[in-house]
Parts: sequence; structure tokens; C-alpha cells
Amino acid sequence: MFEAVELGHRIDKASYQAALPALREALLDAQYELHEKPDFAVLILINGIDGAGKGETVNLLHEWMDPRLIDSHAFGPPSDEEAERPPMWRFWRALPPKGRIGILFGSWYTQPLLDRVAGRCRESELRATIDDIVRFETMLAEEGVLLLKFWFHLGKRQQKARLKALERDPRTRWRVGEQDWALFRHYDRHREVAEDVLLRTSTAEAPWVAIDGEDPYYRSLTAGRLLLESLRRRLDAGRAPQVFAAPPPLLPPLDQVRVLDRLELERPLGKSDYTELLETWQGRLNLLSRDPRFARHGVVMVFEGNDAAGKGGAIRRVVGALDARQYQVIPVAAPADEERAQPYLWRFWRHLSRRGRFVIFDRSWYGRVLVERVEGLCPEPAWCRAYGEINDFERQLTRHGLVLCKFWLAIDRDEQLRRFQAREQTRFKRFKITAEDWRNREKWDDYSAAVHDMVERTSTSAAPWTLVEANNKYFARIKVLQTLCEAIETRL
Amino acid sequence: MFEAVELGHRIDKASYQAALPALREALLDAQYELHEKPDFAVLILINGIDGAGKGETVNLLHEWMDPRLIDSHAFGPPSDEEAERPPMWRFWRALPPKGRIGILFGSWYTQPLLDRVAGRCRESELRATIDDIVRFETMLAEEGVLLLKFWFHLGKRQQKARLKALERDPRTRWRVGEQDWALFRHYDRHREVAEDVLLRTSTAEAPWVAIDGEDPYYRSLTAGRLLLESLRRRLDAGRAPQVFAAPPPLLPPLDQVRVLDRLELERPLGKSDYTELLETWQGRLNLLSRDPRFARHGVVMVFEGNDAAGKGGAIRRVVGALDARQYQVIPVAAPADEERAQPYLWRFWRHLSRRGRFVIFDRSWYGRVLVERVEGLCPEPAWCRAYGEINDFERQLTRHGLVLCKFWLAIDRDEQLRRFQAREQTRFKRFKITAEDWRNREKWDDYSAAVHDMVERTSTSAAPWTLVEANNKYFARIKVLQTLCEAIETRL
Repeated sequence: MFEAVELGHRIDKASYQAALPALREALLDAQYELHEKPDFAVLILINGIDGAGKGETVNLLHEWMDPRLIDSHAFGPPSDEEAERPPMWRFWRALPPKGRIGILFGSWYTQPLLDRVAGRCRESELRATIDDIVRFETMLAEEGVLLLKFWFHLGKRQQKARLKALERDPRTRWRVGEQDWALFRHYDRHREVAEDVLLRTSTAEAPWVAIDGEDPYYRSLTAGRLLLESLRRRLDAGRAPQVFAAPPPLLPPLDQVRVLDRLELERPLGKSDYTELLETWQGRLNLLSRDPRFARHGVVMVFEGNDAAGKGGAIRRVVGALDARQYQVIPVAAPADEERAQPYLWRFWRHLSRRGRFVIFDRSWYGRVLVERVEGLCPEPAWCRAYGEINDFERQLTRHGLVLCKFWLAIDRDEQLRRFQAREQTRFKRFKITAEDWRNREKWDDYSAAVHDMVERTSTSAAPWTLVEANNKYFARIKVLQTLCEAIETRL
Repeated sequence: MFEAVELGHRIDKASYQAALPALREALLDAQYELHEKPDFAVLILINGIDGAGKGETVNLLHEWMDPRLIDSHAFGPPSDEEAERPPMWRFWRALPPKGRIGILFGSWYTQPLLDRVAGRCRESELRATIDDIVRFETMLAEEGVLLLKFWFHLGKRQQKARLKALERDPRTRWRVGEQDWALFRHYDRHREVAEDVLLRTSTAEAPWVAIDGEDPYYRSLTAGRLLLESLRRRLDAGRAPQVFAAPPPLLPPLDQVRVLDRLELERPLGKSDYTELLETWQGRLNLLSRDPRFARHGVVMVFEGNDAAGKGGAIRRVVGALDARQYQVIPVAAPADEERAQPYLWRFWRHLSRRGRFVIFDRSWYGRVLVERVEGLCPEPAWCRAYGEINDFERQLTRHGLVLCKFWLAIDRDEQLRRFQAREQTRFKRFKITAEDWRNREKWDDYSAAVHDMVERTSTSAAPWTLVEANNKYFARIKVLQTLCEAIETRL
């Protein structure tokens, strides 16, 4: 693809200056329109050859538009807080909310590219990374993010001349370091790998745009025009394009047998056996949490289940074995307004913690395929694609060394009724039962269908679902503790 | 004060067990009541002697209550992201929102205490720190935070015995390290300094509670009861106590001359002189931003001013001299819901960046004493105390090595009218003028009074206000750039 770029594209100063006023006015206009009606976010990735005018162009975009509505982030070496979380955490952290333009200098492409050029990763690993990137960007597009990917390019001769020129000028000498020349020595390899990656990640939703960086007028006007055209097209369309307009319907199993139907919910476990087992497993969990090897890992737990299935009680038995300094419980309710302005999974990414800790989600990202699906709170295409997005998210957690345990606590309708009634009669539990709980109960079968699909689509070998027979609270709590301990032991 | 604690307080197991069920139920009840009606946050500081049962007590509190509504944070050595911001940043970051209970292991007391015990700071410095802490905690109290400060105590003999016992038990041996014994060797000094600090920081709103840590039953029940009583009292009162119920009124100067009256708003500066000066000062600012010494500092800028005074234009001329990777512009509008659940200044603390960067606030924390005061959006006691809180906040910024520049851009009523009318006629500026702008204009005199008081109360030598005569945009922009450059130069 770069042959078409390395043609020495240029325009003259007069044409540039003639075009500029209208472009700037239109850009500002589009920017304010986006701000006034914040339906989507704009994300611009800036990658390319050193010396090809990346910084200059971004500075110009800031000058042409209103910098108050732009968030720029540069990614150098990760901070210690970033290094202790999955690699994508720092990028999620930098995503712009709806109504704003985010510019990322360096991106999720930078490290894989450099690693491959330097031979630190194999071709097959790069392929796997590219797959992940394509899926991530598809998710962004489907969440309505307008994603623009700019590659600022220079031919080999041009780059050499440019680096030399920067070195000659005392005002820009600081910008050229040994690592720039080191990378230049790998120019051919860099060009080859970059071309491969760009071609493979140029999707319909987010194609790469390679820009000849030699002539400042040409590259600036090209970038500005592209941004303007993309913004205008989206603003005028009034809504994001539907990538999967009509997903194939999820059919129930023909024999109507669902995962929960095969569970024997009533399991025997008496109080005295329970007390003994509780002590055993809590002790084991406590030892594991203080194992020196655990400090390199961490645990993410997800608790889902029928209303009144005993999630809270199970969580308390887990944290009862832990030091309060080592865990955090995240109760998931309706999203805050800053969360609604971001892609769905943003509100969960932000709670991921540093290594050696337990993060416990009381309800979770599965809300999308459970309550949001059943209650019609999000459109069908959105919850249908959530299964894949969730798998991608969870794969990043487990690949980072986190132990991920997902529990569905299951009780039957009669047991739920008994518990609802008991709650209404206990003073300090009266807050736990609301009109909504009674309403949800009406949709028992819909929830069962949703659970079935969820388990079918998101129970993976690295992050399996554990279905917990929870009519007997004692049994349920022990099963949760045991599953957790064994998952950690397998991982250490 | 510790004599009254070191009495070997204890209760027997039977009394403890008899009291526990009612305590737990009442605690849960209070916790859910707080959660259902989130009027305030609860913040518990855990400090004291090693081995006095701090961790054990907090774990018990988690066990007794619903851990899903508690946020615990432990503070070890700061991460690099924390170390590059003012010291209080990490604590602001950990504040619980309304409706939740936050527990801090270690707090803003830990480092000053240890530093004084080790002789790393002087008595006078400790005094200054204590002053800051008292002011900070008063602010929390006035923002409605219920602040409980627990000091878990042990006599010297008891601590030695406790550390030895921990060492003997293989399950707890890991908890005692060389640094614990090192601190024990300074026991007397530690006790002396702690007592002094505790007495000085025991205010009416947030007194310290020292708890004898030797007997687990005694200390746990004491902590639980204290938490319950404090929670209940606040819940039953229905609202936070008014610390300053009736602040003395702010009187205008008797001669009615206000700071803005003395400004000569019309300043001459022609376009060609402006262009030349702009280049000069932008060049100087660019050099400063790349000065190696600047990497240890950073800039925080505040832009306030009449509507249409040219804040946006001035900001663009500043960032025009900077690399887009080095700055962030924070437009301040209505708070998000997560921000409303926190003390007022939280939404500004969260935007402070790492060293070597520019953070530019387009409107700022001064909204409280400007628009919120004039429009009656917050009660008089709240904006009256904001002056002092803002000064405390800004002192932390400048003490951290940040250069803080605050600009008020002033135009007169006629000039504003001209600009409003011009904006309404320019397509890409039409978003900049709203009905609210016209309404604010009606209150011109009220705003002038508010600006006068603001300058009188918050212009300090470390963070002075710069009043910018802005009828002539050219003049205003140059004055902003020049002031900024000179402020950085003075600081480097």
C-alpha cells in the first residue's frame, strides 16, 4: 500500500492557504455540533514513521479546532499502575466520552509492531494480536465510536533526510535520539511489517489512512479533510451505522432442556458439617491469598444468580477469609452518567485493580445478556454481540495471569418465594426486597433462557461458569469457596 | 490521653457474644439505611500501634456489615502516578461517595507521624502539617462526611508481647518484619509524638478515639459500638450538623470601588504588533516547556472571566505554543453524578496530572464563589467557606512545585453586547451563545461583587490572580502568555 503514498505528494502554499479558512470553519462547526448533541465519540489514532509530521499535524488539529473539546494522550513506557493491569487498560482509560475527540499518540498498534520488527514476537503471535485488535475495533465501531486511523509515512530516503534536518536545527535536535536512528536502520523491516499489519487491520468500519508525510501542506490538509469528511458524514447520518443490523435469532434447544434444568438444586449439607468445611476452605483460601506466588496474579470474581439466591452471603464467606486490604467488592447497579458516555465494558475495566488483589463483582458485565436482554433495556444486536465482546474481555484478564471465577447461584421458584417472604419480615433485610424483585420473578422463564444462552456462549476453558446449586445456602457457599481455591491452586 | 487507654480494658467472652447479635443487626440496618438514602459518606481512619488489632478489627467490621457497601484502601509506598502528584491526591482518590463507608488503613497522619518520630521533620513542620490536616478535616465535615478516627493502642509491654506472639505462630509470622521491631525500639518517642498529634487534631467534628487493643473482645465491641452510635446519630438527625451556621456577611467596600472598576479595559495593541509579540511569547513558552527543569514541575492554569471575554481564544494561543502531548484542557460544566456524590473539590483533584505537564481549566473551582454564589445554587455558608478551602487546595499545588496561574478576563458591558451580537451572526460560533448568557448579563453587578470578593480572598503570593484587560483581544492574549512565561521562569 505504501507505493501509492511514496509518490512525493505535495500541494503548494497558495492552494493550502486558500483552502484553510473554509476547512477550519467547517471543522469547528462539526466539533460544536458533536459537542451539543453528544451521540458518539471520535477517536483518532496517530501512528507512523518518525519524522513524518505526526506531532506537527496533531498540533495543527488542536489549533484549527477548539482544544477544549479534544483529549490527547501520549503513551510512553507504562506507569507501574498500568503495568500491573492487562495491557489494554491504559487505552480504555484514555477513551474519550461521547461528544469529544480523543487523539492517541501511539496506540495498541505501537508495541506489537515494534516487538515484531525487533524479532521479540513470532509471526503467529502477531497474527493473534491482530485478531484481537480487529475484534476490539469492531466493538468500538459498534458502540458508535468514530475511529480514524492515520499512518504518517515517509520513504526511506525521505526519513533519513528528515532526521538529519531535525538534527541540524538546534530547536529540534532534542527530538532525534539514538533510538530513532536504531529504528531507521530497520526501516525496510519496519515498512514491511507495518504494511502487513495495516492491510490486515483495515476493516470496513475503520480503515487505515496512510498519508505521505513529506510535504507539510499536503499532510495537514489531507488529515484535516479526512477528519472533516468523516465527522460530517456521521453527523449528517444522524446515527451510527448498524454493523450487524439483523443478528440471527437465538433459538431455544428443540427439546426445551436448559442448563439449569439439569441441576439438582437441593443439596444436603448440615450446619455442623458446614461449619467444619467453612473453616477448612476459608483457611485454605487465606493461605493462598498470602502465598508469595499469588502476588504476581490476582482474582476477579463474578457473582450472578436469581434474586435472593444468596450472592451477598457467599461473598461474605469469601471475604471473611481475606484481609480487608486485599479485596474490593464492586456492586453493579445502573451506570453513572460518565459510564453511559463510554463503550459498555468501560465501567468494568475501570475497576480492575493492581496485582495480588481480589476484585469481586456483585453482578457484572453479564447484566447486558441477562437483565438488559430480558427487560428490553438494550437492542437485540447489542446484547447479541456482547457475548463475543465479553469473551474477548475475559481472555485479556486470564492472559494477564488473573484467575477469573464466574458463579451462577441457582435456586428454584419455591425457594425464592420463601426467601422473599422471609426478607420482608426481617427488619434489617427489608431493604433487600423491592417491587422490582417481585416483577423480575414474573419473568422466570425468560431469565432461564438468558442464563442458558449465556452459559453456552461464555463458558470457556480459561473462564468457565460454575453453576451453583443454591437452595441450600450452606452447600452453595462451600462450593463457591472450594471452586475458588482450586482455581487459584491450578493457576499458581 | 493514653493513660486512660492503657488500663488493660477487657470484657469477657460471654458478654461479647451476648452483645454481638444486636450490634450486628443494628449496624446492617444503619448501613442499608445509609445506602437507600445516600445523604452522606462515612470515612473511618485506622491508625495506631502495630499489633494492636487494626487489621483484625477492620476484618470484623467487614464481616458484621455488608462488605459490598464498604471501600477499604491501604496505603503503602506511593505508586509512581501518586508520587508525581501532591501528597493528598491519593487520599482524595480513595474518598467514598455518599451512601458508602470508606475505611483507610493508614491515612494522612501516617507519614507525618513517622517522619517526626524518625527526626526527618522538625517540630515546626509537624505543626504546619497538623494545621493543614485540621483544615482538611473541617472541610470534610462541612461537606457532610462523617469522619471517624480510630487509634488502636497498646502499652509498651503489651506491644512487645504481641509482636513476640505473632512471631511464634507460623500462621502470623509473616506479619512481623524488621521494620516493626525498629519502630518498637522508638516506642516511647512514637507514643509521645502520637499523643501530641492526636490531641491537636481532636476537633469537635472529628475527635480521635483511642481504643485499648490488647483484648480482642473489648476493642472489637468498642469500635463497632462507636461506629453504630455515630451512624445512628447522623441518620436520625436527618442532616449534617452545620459547622458554620451563620457566616458573617460579606460587605461591599463603603466607597463602592471594586477591583474591576480600576481596570482600564481598553488597551491599545495593533494587529502587526500583536503578531510579532505573539511569536515572541509563544516561542519563549515553547522553550520553557522543553526546559529539562520543567519536567520536575508542571503548570495549572485557571481561566475565568465574563462571558465572551475571550477565554477560549486565550487558551488557544497558549496551547498553540505547546505540544499536544503535553497539555490537557478541562472544560468545567455541571458536575457529573459521581462528582456530586463527593466533596466539592474532588472533581478538580481528579484532573491533576503527572509532572511536566500543563493542565488548563476553562472555568474552575471558582465557580462556587462566582456562578453558584450569584445564582443561589449553593447555600451561603458553603460558598463562604469555599474561599479558605480553595486557598488550602492551591497551597498544596504550589507546594508541590506546580506553577499556578489564575486569570480573570474582564470586558465591559458594551463590549460584551457587541460580541454576543457578533456570535449570533457567525455560523460556527452560534453554539457559543445561549439564553443563559443573556440571563447572566442581567446580573452584571452581582458578578462584579463576586469577583471583587474572590480576588480579595484568594489572591495569594503563591497563587495571585491576574486581572486581564480584555476589551482588546490582542492585548489580553499577550498579557496571558507573558504572565505565564514569567511565572514559569520565576519558578524554575
